Amino acid sequence: MSVNPVSQTLPILPKLSDFYVDEVIKAALKEDINYIDVTTDLLIPPESQSTAVMTAKSDGVLSGIEVALRVFGLLDKDAVVTFSLNDGSPLRKGVKIAEITGNTASLLKAERTALNLLQHMSGIATYTSLCVNAVNGTGVVIADTRKTLPGLRVLQKYAVLCGGGSNHRFNLSSAAMIKDNHIDACGSITEAVTALRKRAGHMVMTEVEVNSFERLREAVAVGADIIMLDNMTVEMMREAVGIVAGLTDSAKTSQNRPLLEASGNVTLDNIREVADTGVDIISIGALTHSVAVVDVGLNLSAV
Amino acid sequence: MSVNPVSQTLPILPKLSDFYVDEVIKAALKEDINYIDVTTDLLIPPESQSTAVMTAKSDGVLSGIEVALRVFGLLDKDAVVTFSLNDGSPLRKGVKIAEITGNTASLLKAERTALNLLQHMSGIATYTSLCVNAVNGTGVVIADTRKTLPGLRVLQKYAVLCGGGSNHRFNLSSAAMIKDNHIDACGSITEAVTALRKRAGHMVMTEVEVNSFERLREAVAVGADIIMLDNMTVEMMREAVGIVAGLTDSAKTSQNRPLLEASGNVTLDNIREVADTGVDIISIGALTHSVAVVDVGLNLSAV
Amino acid sequence: MSVNPVSQTLPILPKLSDFYVDEVIKAALKEDINYIDVTTDLLIPPESQSTAVMTAKSDGVLSGIEVALRVFGLLDKDAVVTFSLNDGSPLRKGVKIAEITGNTASLLKAERTALNLLQHMSGIATYTSLCVNAVNGTGVVIADTRKTLPGLRVLQKYAVLCGGGSNHRFNLSSAAMIKDNHIDACGSITEAVTALRKRAGHMVMTEVEVNSFERLREAVAVGADIIMLDNMTVEMMREAVGIVAGLTDSAKTSQNRPLLEASGNVTLDNIREVADTGVDIISIGALTHSVAVVDVGLNLSAV
Amino acid sequence: MSVNPVSQTLPILPKLSDFYVDEVIKAALKEDINYIDVTTDLLIPPESQSTAVMTAKSDGVLSGIEVALRVFGLLDKDAVVTFSLNDGSPLRKGVKIAEITGNTASLLKAERTALNLLQHMSGIATYTSLCVNAVNGTGVVIADTRKTLPGLRVLQKYAVLCGGGSNHRFNLSSAAMIKDNHIDACGSITEAVTALRKRAGHMVMTEVEVNSFERLREAVAVGADIIMLDNMTVEMMREAVGIVAGLTDSAKTSQNRPLLEASGNVTLDNIREVADTGVDIISIGALTHSVAVVDVGLNLSAV
Amino acid sequence: MSVNPVSQTLPILPKLSDFYVDEVIKAALKEDINYIDVTTDLLIPPESQSTAVMTAKSDGVLSGIEVALRVFGLLDKDAVVTFSLNDGSPLRKGVKIAEITGNTASLLKAERTALNLLQHMSGIATYTSLCVNAVNGTGVVIADTRKTLPGLRVLQKYAVLCGGGSNHRFNLSSAAMIKDNHIDACGSITEAVTALRKRAGHMVMTEVEVNSFERLREAVAVGADIIMLDNMTVEMMREAVGIVAGLTDSAKTSQNRPLLEASGNVTLDNIREVADTGVDIISIGALTHSVAVVDVGLNLSAV
Amino acid sequence: MSVNPVSQTLPILPKLSDFYVDEVIKAALKEDINYIDVTTDLLIPPESQSTAVMTAKSDGVLSGIEVALRVFGLLDKDAVVTFSLNDGSPLRKGVKIAEITGNTASLLKAERTALNLLQHMSGIATYTSLCVNAVNGTGVVIADTRKTLPGLRVLQKYAVLCGGGSNHRFNLSSAAMIKDNHIDACGSITEAVTALRKRAGHMVMTEVEVNSFERLREAVAVGADIIMLDNMTVEMMREAVGIVAGLTDSAKTSQNRPLLEASGNVTLDNIREVADTGVDIISIGALTHSVAVVDVGLNLSAV
Repeated sequence: MSVNPVSQTLPILPKLSDFYVDEVIKAALKEDINYIDVTTDLLIPPESQSTAVMTAKSDGVLSGIEVALRVFGLLDKDAVVTFSLNDGSPLRKGVKIAEITGNTASLLKAERTALNLLQHMSGIATYTSLCVNAVNGTGVVIADTRKTLPGLRVLQKYAVLCGGGSNHRFNLSSAAMIKDNHIDACGSITEAVTALRKRAGHMVMTEVEVNSFERLREAVAVGADIIMLDNMTVEMMREAVGIVAGLTDSAKTSQNRPLLEASGNVTLDNIREVADTGVDIISIGALTHSVAVVDVGLNLSAV
Repeated sequence: MSVNPVSQTLPILPKLSDFYVDEVIKAALKEDINYIDVTTDLLIPPESQSTAVMTAKSDGVLSGIEVALRVFGLLDKDAVVTFSLNDGSPLRKGVKIAEITGNTASLLKAERTALNLLQHMSGIATYTSLCVNAVNGTGVVIADTRKTLPGLRVLQKYAVLCGGGSNHRFNLSSAAMIKDNHIDACGSITEAVTALRKRAGHMVMTEVEVNSFERLREAVAVGADIIMLDNMTVEMMREAVGIVAGLTDSAKTSQNRPLLEASGNVTLDNIREVADTGVDIISIGALTHSVAVVDVGLNLSAV
Repeated sequence: MSVNPVSQTLPILPKLSDFYVDEVIKAALKEDINYIDVTTDLLIPPESQSTAVMTAKSDGVLSGIEVALRVFGLLDKDAVVTFSLNDGSPLRKGVKIAEITGNTASLLKAERTALNLLQHMSGIATYTSLCVNAVNGTGVVIADTRKTLPGLRVLQKYAVLCGGGSNHRFNLSSAAMIKDNHIDACGSITEAVTALRKRAGHMVMTEVEVNSFERLREAVAVGADIIMLDNMTVEMMREAVGIVAGLTDSAKTSQNRPLLEASGNVTLDNIREVADTGVDIISIGALTHSVAVVDVGLNLSAV
Repeated sequence: MSVNPVSQTLPILPKLSDFYVDEVIKAALKEDINYIDVTTDLLIPPESQSTAVMTAKSDGVLSGIEVALRVFGLLDKDAVVTFSLNDGSPLRKGVKIAEITGNTASLLKAERTALNLLQHMSGIATYTSLCVNAVNGTGVVIADTRKTLPGLRVLQKYAVLCGGGSNHRFNLSSAAMIKDNHIDACGSITEAVTALRKRAGHMVMTEVEVNSFERLREAVAVGADIIMLDNMTVEMMREAVGIVAGLTDSAKTSQNRPLLEASGNVTLDNIREVADTGVDIISIGALTHSVAVVDVGLNLSAV
Repeated sequence: MSVNPVSQTLPILPKLSDFYVDEVIKAALKEDINYIDVTTDLLIPPESQSTAVMTAKSDGVLSGIEVALRVFGLLDKDAVVTFSLNDGSPLRKGVKIAEITGNTASLLKAERTALNLLQHMSGIATYTSLCVNAVNGTGVVIADTRKTLPGLRVLQKYAVLCGGGSNHRFNLSSAAMIKDNHIDACGSITEAVTALRKRAGHMVMTEVEVNSFERLREAVAVGADIIMLDNMTVEMMREAVGIVAGLTDSAKTSQNRPLLEASGNVTLDNIREVADTGVDIISIGALTHSVAVVDVGLNLSAV
Repeated sequence: MSVNPVSQTLPILPKLSDFYVDEVIKAALKEDINYIDVTTDLLIPPESQSTAVMTAKSDGVLSGIEVALRVFGLLDKDAVVTFSLNDGSPLRKGVKIAEITGNTASLLKAERTALNLLQHMSGIATYTSLCVNAVNGTGVVIADTRKTLPGLRVLQKYAVLCGGGSNHRFNLSSAAMIKDNHIDACGSITEAVTALRKRAGHMVMTEVEVNSFERLREAVAVGADIIMLDNMTVEMMREAVGIVAGLTDSAKTSQNRPLLEASGNVTLDNIREVADTGVDIISIGALTHSVAVVDVGLNLSAV
């Protein structure tokens, strides 16, 4: 992986709430420790102190460093942690990420849970960053989806931000997405959007999923905020962009036309081509549903 | 992916407890629905009934079908579900997996959570199955690790079984793994194993991680139950197998010698080569930490 | 209270998820029963069956009937419930709302929790309905706020819908509201909105809170989706409506101009006057933070 | 509202347990933040520090100050809080209640949850205090009921104490209340009380609800600890007091006669009249079920 | 153990709430199953059905039968359970208690948790019953204490009722117990009781712990509801009973004098002697803190 | 009880995880405090500070001191605790165990929960220690079982370690135990063990329960890791030891033969006799299911 300079400006990142993060970590520790660490608890002297150094074992983008370090803090209140890199930073193989000094047994018990979280989140940030870099200069936004893993949506969506990506709606309450079944139930896109605008709150953004130019035109006409081009070919997307421009040409800014979102079958191989069609957003389920970890190591040495 | 006939005999699978599965699903639904489905709840007539057909969109191995179908049951107690394939079954692109008839709005709300679970679990089963098939005939066991995602260990380890794999220890309490830090703290492998045997319960299996032949010999001598060959080359593994055979030749069966587990840097490309060294077990973190989904679709039609 | 015919057409209502509702009810029952009902458990014969009739003791709008009836179901799986009125229906003093037949002891234990929920939710729906009716014909939307009670937001926001009102953003994640502190931190409304548009996801609606005409003009110019007129007098609101119309007159529909939301110091006494200024939305914290119950009675008779 | 000097002596108040309060707050924060504060997290510089001043915007009685300040502590461990007024203190419009210095983003995220709790609890304390003051000099106790909101009973009952009121039984386990259904099931008040005395533990106080003088006499005769006069007119209550005095005149102190509790239809308009009948306790559901908030503001300024 | 005919009349028992019981059971099952039953899930054919017969293996009193049977229901919704004995029934070694027919694997997984609950609860009921029978004819009540095991108080207090005993206060909120530290803080018993009566709600029963006759007289004088004779000798208790009788002789019934509770060092050996002193209640921590199980067996046979 | 010098060397003990222990304690405090301590909160001045001294009131072995002291810390963050004895230490009646200085009201509220935990855990450690001492010199291991109380398994198994005992499998996932039903389902011990070895993970230890010498021989032949002699007489056990020795005499060390576990009907009276038969392990359900507390007192004095 090659992280180009574009991503050197770290993204603005939200602060995840401690009470949420702690809950995920405690669940993970309960799963992994359960009762005791039968090896560590019975072999490592309880007074032993060590320093653990966390090092990148491959290139990528960092995500979850505060989450991972919190694992150590939850098992050893007196652990001292320092980290050299913030979330969103590019990782180079061999670079030191953080250092933790504390009770040896606690460090060993925390290790796996901390790395499981950090490696997964960094995996998401890394793949997102590759996508973001691939469309560099086009102004296209790379967005995630609701295809996340149960219980991990907050961490996964945050990791997408770390990689320079953007979050699609957080859940079914936070924005509307009108799909085929909704259109069928209402009779038409026009009727569906009209009904929703009347029934939903004024803070609800409305996206319409279309798979034909006819539906695209209808969605533009009824004033959808965002239009998803569902599983269209690159050629179709290019034509869709033209159609929307034609229908909204009197309005000069993006404020006044619906945003176009490409979705489906986008990979690193074709993402630039998709971006070049002029769509505004490319949403990619694989950012969160098919993630390969970034390898991170932890080495302990006696204090 | 090509699933060869070896896996046609479905593995013996445990039954996951409802109370556990329901808890994971409810957490996922809370995350995804939160308050209401602002699109579906406001556009789909509440009395509408539909049938949803679940279909494989790529080849693979099925895992999580009962978990996924339970999602529909939790949102619509009267939903009728039938499934054509059991967990562990090979999937062919286009094959029908299951059918659910029930309240349309509930089906739409359940869809994403059900598919997120099913696709992830089937992804694990599929990759596991590829590994298992790759070592077909060698008698080598493909095992998972503790490199799982927080809150999902039970589902992930179960999915490994669906793919024909085997579970390594479930957590830090259930078996012992003596690593470098433990050996250093005790002085030697011999001292570590001896101390643990004295202090740990009699139901605790003991594995020792070694990275040299000297340590390997010591581990055999002290009677470790399993020995992990940590990040060894294929050549080293082959030699390790020979060393252990030599040390235990008077004992004819595997009962009387430690099992050898290969770990680290094993991919589909080299797994057969590793298996052919004569090791007993190959453990692979990627089975659970770097999983690509198997694509599954859901189509609704009015009843 | 007088519920005029306007509200006779029941609102389209979402279906709250059972797993959410059950959790609230179980928490309430634990709080109220704790161990046993020391009176009922020791005095009422366990085999005794009764029919309980739920009756409105004052006028209002019904909300929470399914929630309330679920309380009885959780304490007596075999209870038979029938209800004569749906959520959103007007209530007249004396009208029968529902009937529950089941185990007498369970009915008595469920009574208080069921009524506490129903009376509170109906209180919200009733006050909302009064506000909605007061602006009848103006097209103004009555919306709630985030001024809800801990743990009850879902039920309270749902009750607002039952009264014909509309939901403002559900939480801090689901939409943006730029207030003074955000503007100060960024330097100006323009900078704040521009920064947010760049950093937030494309499904995030943006509202700006203004307290002067200068800020109002700036918010319109930068294209805010919604503008909140914060604690303005009726005269100021009227002028604000004119300003926005002037700035956006080339655009004929509400699609092309920001919505205006009035907030602060709105009561039943002045709500019509506020609505007549031409604002689009009136948001009222009191809908959920200062609710008087609608009185509902429950009478048991032996089966 | 006018808080007369009577309440200047602050009530003796229990200390609510942190673990309970934290649980309520975390649930509220999860509801309100969910994932991130999309406005604050993306616009406020993470290193920004501010001081927030909490000020009463109307008169009343304070309740929940430690609860509210704990919200800030949970989002910013290093926040420094100081408060000028204790729970139970009278509030004058414009008076400063507390000051919090800490991370600006955390202050903004905590604000709504803290105020929602404080305003609701102070609303309860304020209304209770009005009732208490209205009966000043009569010795009558103002008590709450079980008509509380799900999940909030502890906070609501505590707020009643802050207003100078008294708590009725906490739940169905902690004391007995014999109502019509129990009397019917047992045959008579005498049989019900006798059976309960025999079956319930010796720490269970027994109250009997009566709606006629005949039942009142029976309740006195059987030695009920407390007798509730259910929905009686003021005239009936006065007569009831006389009847009980007549039946127990040989016993001089309140120790030796049942306490009389008035319940139903008591408002600020008639509460003094009710108190003057000579009843011992007036219980009022509206203390907790129909609460209007006390308005409290929070203003931030840069440190 | 010999259960004499006195206990043949089963006590009136409360119905424990399903939502509470289910929570305890699910926690227990999670603890005991965790992931899978590695023996049963892999060896017992999933379609196998069996009948399990539950039999007493020693004499005693039954408690927890519905709780225990619920364990089977939670693991196999279709299990059919029938029970021959109700809670509170005497058990004879060899007698059949219940029969469960269902999925063999589920029966095996439920067995340990069900028996752990039933044997513990029956152990409590049995020991309680022995105490109750030992004081047969004296009218003395045998009561439990707050010396219960974390998380199990509801089940343990219920089991005391099954054995014919009575419940002391359920928790620190439900009634008052004035001990040395409270007396010291207030200055005297008189001041403590007076202060509490003024500050606590009217439904709070007040008990005073005394260790001298002087304090006893003071407690009687101030009108304590119950007086605990703390660690007194049998002789002292007898004298205490006389003192109280003397002080209250004008009042003929127990209504008009405080109840006397003996506490401390009471065993089956001296309980009759203690009861014969004339105290009203004997409270015994060992009922719940030092319980020996009643042995119950479960045998499966194929259907 | 007499604790002989054997146990003076304290056992190596694991550190229980704070997040687990805190959860148990909070559940216990919620159960015991619920709302407020109606006595302490209303009578003890909130600023009062005291020192509490914890003293053994009988001989035994200490377990749970850190757990018990944590209770005080959870109610008073500023409490200062010091303890003189570690878990596993012998207790002599009258010896001081620990001292806590802090808020008086918090000390009083924590007292019961802290002692309930400490006395129960020390009771387990004490009985375990008696068993361990009784077999002193034989090399026999005293092990617990799965007969634990719901929700308390971690604390109970830890207490067994404090008493010098050993833990049997933690749960149904962590090791396999083949019983009659499994053998019947598979056809024979040989088939059951063989099937399990093939299906279960390589970290799963396998124990077989036998009740006849024929089955014993079969279990040895098939290479069971551990064999449980179920409810055998002492004579049978002795013979069983001889049989196993005969079958495995060519293998000199315990490494090469199955361990023998005696189970059923072992008491302090016959435990030495059982140990002298030559079995390796004696497992005793009563260690955790029928525990008598060790009495510990807590005395407060003003600071």
